[in-house]
Amino acid sequence: MKKIYTIFAFSAASIAFAQIQKVEPAFWWKGMKNPELQILVYGKDIAKGEVELSDGVQIKDIQKVENPNYVFVTINTNEINVPKFKINIKNGKKNIGSYTYELKQRDPNSANRESFTSKDVMYLIMPDRFANGDEKNDSKPDLTEKANRTLPNGRHGGDLRGIINNLDYIQNLGATSVWLTPVNEDNEKVYSYHGYAQTDLYKIDGRYGTNEEYKELSQKLNKRNMKLVMDYVTNHWGISHWLIKDLPTKDWIHLFSEEKNGFKRSNYKTTTQFDTNASEIDKKVALDGWFDTTMPDINQKNPLVLKYLTQNAIWWIEYAELGGLRVDTYPYNDKEAMAKWAKAITDEYPKFNIVGETWLNTAGHISAWQKDSKTGEAANYNSYLPSVMDFMLYDELPKAIKEKEGWNNGMNRIYNSFTNDFLYPDINNVMVFFENHDTERWNEIFNNDPKAYKLGLTLISTVRGIPQIYYGSEVGMRGDKNKGGDADIRRDFPGGWKSDQQNALNPLTQTPEQKEFYQFTQKLLNWRKGKDVIHTGKTKNFVPQNNVFVYFRYNEKENVMVILNNSEKEETLDLKHFAESLAGVSKGKEAISDKEISLKNSLMIPAKTSMIIELK
Amino acid sequence: MKKIYTIFAFSAASIAFAQIQKVEPAFWWKGMKNPELQILVYGKDIAKGEVELSDGVQIKDIQKVENPNYVFVTINTNEINVPKFKINIKNGKKNIGSYTYELKQRDPNSANRESFTSKDVMYLIMPDRFANGDEKNDSKPDLTEKANRTLPNGRHGGDLRGIINNLDYIQNLGATSVWLTPVNEDNEKVYSYHGYAQTDLYKIDGRYGTNEEYKELSQKLNKRNMKLVMDYVTNHWGISHWLIKDLPTKDWIHLFSEEKNGFKRSNYKTTTQFDTNASEIDKKVALDGWFDTTMPDINQKNPLVLKYLTQNAIWWIEYAELGGLRVDTYPYNDKEAMAKWAKAITDEYPKFNIVGETWLNTAGHISAWQKDSKTGEAANYNSYLPSVMDFMLYDELPKAIKEKEGWNNGMNRIYNSFTNDFLYPDINNVMVFFENHDTERWNEIFNNDPKAYKLGLTLISTVRGIPQIYYGSEVGMRGDKNKGGDADIRRDFPGGWKSDQQNALNPLTQTPEQKEFYQFTQKLLNWRKGKDVIHTGKTKNFVPQNNVFVYFRYNEKENVMVILNNSEKEETLDLKHFAESLAGVSKGKEAISDKEISLKNSLMIPAKTSMIIELK
Repeated sequence: MKKIYTIFAFSAASIAFAQIQKVEPAFWWKGMKNPELQILVYGKDIAKGEVELSDGVQIKDIQKVENPNYVFVTINTNEINVPKFKINIKNGKKNIGSYTYELKQRDPNSANRESFTSKDVMYLIMPDRFANGDEKNDSKPDLTEKANRTLPNGRHGGDLRGIINNLDYIQNLGATSVWLTPVNEDNEKVYSYHGYAQTDLYKIDGRYGTNEEYKELSQKLNKRNMKLVMDYVTNHWGISHWLIKDLPTKDWIHLFSEEKNGFKRSNYKTTTQFDTNASEIDKKVALDGWFDTTMPDINQKNPLVLKYLTQNAIWWIEYAELGGLRVDTYPYNDKEAMAKWAKAITDEYPKFNIVGETWLNTAGHISAWQKDSKTGEAANYNSYLPSVMDFMLYDELPKAIKEKEGWNNGMNRIYNSFTNDFLYPDINNVMVFFENHDTERWNEIFNNDPKAYKLGLTLISTVRGIPQIYYGSEVGMRGDKNKGGDADIRRDFPGGWKSDQQNALNPLTQTPEQKEFYQFTQKLLNWRKGKDVIHTGKTKNFVPQNNVFVYFRYNEKENVMVILNNSEKEETLDLKHFAESLAGVSKGKEAISDKEISLKNSLMIPAKTSMIIELK
Repeated sequence: MKKIYTIFAFSAASIAFAQIQKVEPAFWWKGMKNPELQILVYGKDIAKGEVELSDGVQIKDIQKVENPNYVFVTINTNEINVPKFKINIKNGKKNIGSYTYELKQRDPNSANRESFTSKDVMYLIMPDRFANGDEKNDSKPDLTEKANRTLPNGRHGGDLRGIINNLDYIQNLGATSVWLTPVNEDNEKVYSYHGYAQTDLYKIDGRYGTNEEYKELSQKLNKRNMKLVMDYVTNHWGISHWLIKDLPTKDWIHLFSEEKNGFKRSNYKTTTQFDTNASEIDKKVALDGWFDTTMPDINQKNPLVLKYLTQNAIWWIEYAELGGLRVDTYPYNDKEAMAKWAKAITDEYPKFNIVGETWLNTAGHISAWQKDSKTGEAANYNSYLPSVMDFMLYDELPKAIKEKEGWNNGMNRIYNSFTNDFLYPDINNVMVFFENHDTERWNEIFNNDPKAYKLGLTLISTVRGIPQIYYGSEVGMRGDKNKGGDADIRRDFPGGWKSDQQNALNPLTQTPEQKEFYQFTQKLLNWRKGKDVIHTGKTKNFVPQNNVFVYFRYNEKENVMVILNNSEKEETLDLKHFAESLAGVSKGKEAISDKEISLKNSLMIPAKTSMIIELK
């Protein structure tokens, strides 16, 4: 029996219907763990018609909303035995709109796919600023902002092809996963290159390439045993998103009725999420306030919105064979809704990793965002979010490197930070970094001092967690956040454009200064690739002395001694102090220099120098 | 049947025995929840004799140790029906030592006694520096260090009588409980006034008074519905303690065999307690290292030591009718042993409060020391310690008051600190303070600025927790920790000595400057006394704006608005922002000025000023 849901049946005869303009997701897959699929069908006054599915496909549920241009049709993919069926919109007996819906076969390894872990090093790229591989797509007729490399905040032409062309460079550097800032369509008039004001969640921005090229990049990474990590934005979309311009429901986004155009800026105080005493107004402004004028705040509490975000993320994982998600502005979202979102995705892909941008100051707060944390439990919360970012370490790291020894200063600052690790239920699944696309560049802070870079990179590459590096710093790029906003920290990679005078993407044409940064990075990250002891080994911390921090990474097979001498002078370690980790050891090999190191009695470490010693 | 334990029976005939020199505890009580009592009996070669108890009293267990001068006799007080019995030491049939042991009757309300809570304000006194009520005990023949008020680090003569004489002053000030730094005998040769190097745990130092006077003080406080809180030291004793000079077992204290005299200084890094990756050596030096050269580190892991510490604490609670314990250097102790210690005491006195000196930087660490915390659970630990000290707030408070507004500066610093409250299982049972006997005095930091004092005192007196103030600051006393160690922050209270030129303990003779501090303190603390809404009410925090922090304390009956304007200029609050807490309210009364405040539209707050408004 054909089941037809009739909406506004009484008035059906009197309406002029439009064609189906959008169907999202445009297609889906059979064999998902969750067989339910909610299909958004969009067209002028479409809700005034009747939805009928061909081939005996049953409608499990149909939802209409305030706006008659939408219907949300739920089906059970388990019950469908045809690869394609039709969604028909009928006016009485007349078929006035039709869409052929495809249910594809999944890759048999899809559900069980591997994802980024502490075995990986994450390379963060802003695609507009990395390399321009396809000059033809720099500007597109249907996309407003045109390329103009002379504008610091303009589109510069970098694209997916540029990344694909430089996979050898990235792989040789030692990165094993790539996080791109958002590449979905962002059709804002200006300042659109960052991609965080998305206008189509199912379509790669034409100036970066196509959905097919995005998939090509992912597949080429996978072939290299590398992973593509999508930057996912649940908190806000672009104000020019087609769904925002024709809202399905008023509460799809957060509108502040008392403010002009409903806009109110977030107070950015996301500690209100776990502040049991936060005022309602502060929490509301933090979570529901807009991240920026062009970024309406999405209401994840609306079940239709949550389903849309969940299916969209799964669609990209499945379609583009993704190896992970990084989620923007995580604590700005409704946390209960996000727990459902993260759980739905990880239920579908049990090994899949999702790291949230948990930009908070204390391990207490940050750990509360990690799945199964006791700190979350203290607030009756389980995020189901596998991974979080160690912003506490990020805060402390540059301060520490700049400081002299002190009770809470210099390397003690870093040690102190690590003493909070007990709060994390899965400390290996924490992202460690000293900069990203939103921060002052490390090399700016340290005025391109290779010593400071080496200390910082050694640390994040050898401590617990997933090191994340930011494109260009490996050749000494700098950038000042205080100089005209974010443009300076997102400079073009030298050599990414044909017209560039100098090419740092080719190690042969790097300047001597670039080489010093590059070669250290390459050596260290490639060394790290094979080191289980760094990926998953235990840690033993020794309280810093004289601004020297020593820790060991060890497992049953290996033992690595890491020494960070942050002192302005050469320091000599009395090795007896480390006897519990050095028992039976008399020598080792330093990982960067490949030199053999004698470990009898004492060890001299030059000023502002790190050593990574594989013990023998 | 008489049961006699025979020790070294084969050689008993050949030894010359000495008398019983010490029995600890000297007496005990019937009707304790835990009926077992372990009695230490001390005398030359006493372990070579036989212990016999009179009146059919059974010995449950007897322990001898390396040192033959000790026996530890366990009895079950439930099974004893006589008020007194004899402990006899026998050499064959000859009785060569005897001690009459008394089991007193408990006060029927003892077990269920009340203890300090967030209803209280704690007044911290260093007894040597507060008031000299009895000049006859300034020096004692049997105690080495004599009074010399000209020495900053010497004994100045303050005593218990001085405190008893000034109870009106303390009560009128608004304090409801009194924490004295240790008053047990500290017979070190010099620098003994602080009392943290105790040489007898069962005896008040003769220069402070007698056990009876200590009990008198407590009883007189109780009559005023106030409480006496003992400063208990489990971590270390004085090197001249009789038990240390004749150690029962070598492992009674921690001796570092490789160091001279077994002394090694602690590294004070007590974060190692919860650092899952701490090296053994760092943790050992932190916990087993000595706090100072005269303070051997006690080994709480030794069951005899733990029993001694537990019974001693209970003895003082029962004997002196105590209303709480403050425990010194809490995280320097073995944490598993301390959990047993705290549990034993609170099992005996279910409402009894114990606050640990948890001098750590983050709420993650501090909260982990509070009973039933999820953060403790994250490290598989339950401390059973009811109360902890909010050293994170202490750290942030003076920085905040000194700073201008900033994302993490000024009042935002304090607000940020409070956003970690969710980590505490019992946030009302947290001690809040801006100084104590180990820190720079607040009035030194702020150069006696009454405005800064009022801001600080308003905060600690109106937020959640138990406010603790430090003697003398209420009359503007200052003290610089960087000037000759701790002497300057522990100056004599003016007027505490007969010869003092000026008396601040009498409000009538206070200087105008002293009056300003005193009158504000007195008004605020006395106002706080009756305010359930402050003691146990909920809190609502509003994110600071323009360096003004506003929070509300509220319950079903009352609602109090606290405003701290830390800005250098007058600020005007738009009261609409606080609508959720001000609904239906149009006026209030300011608690210090008693002025009626109109709460329509806006409210002007002068620069660097606080207001506490009881809403109507």
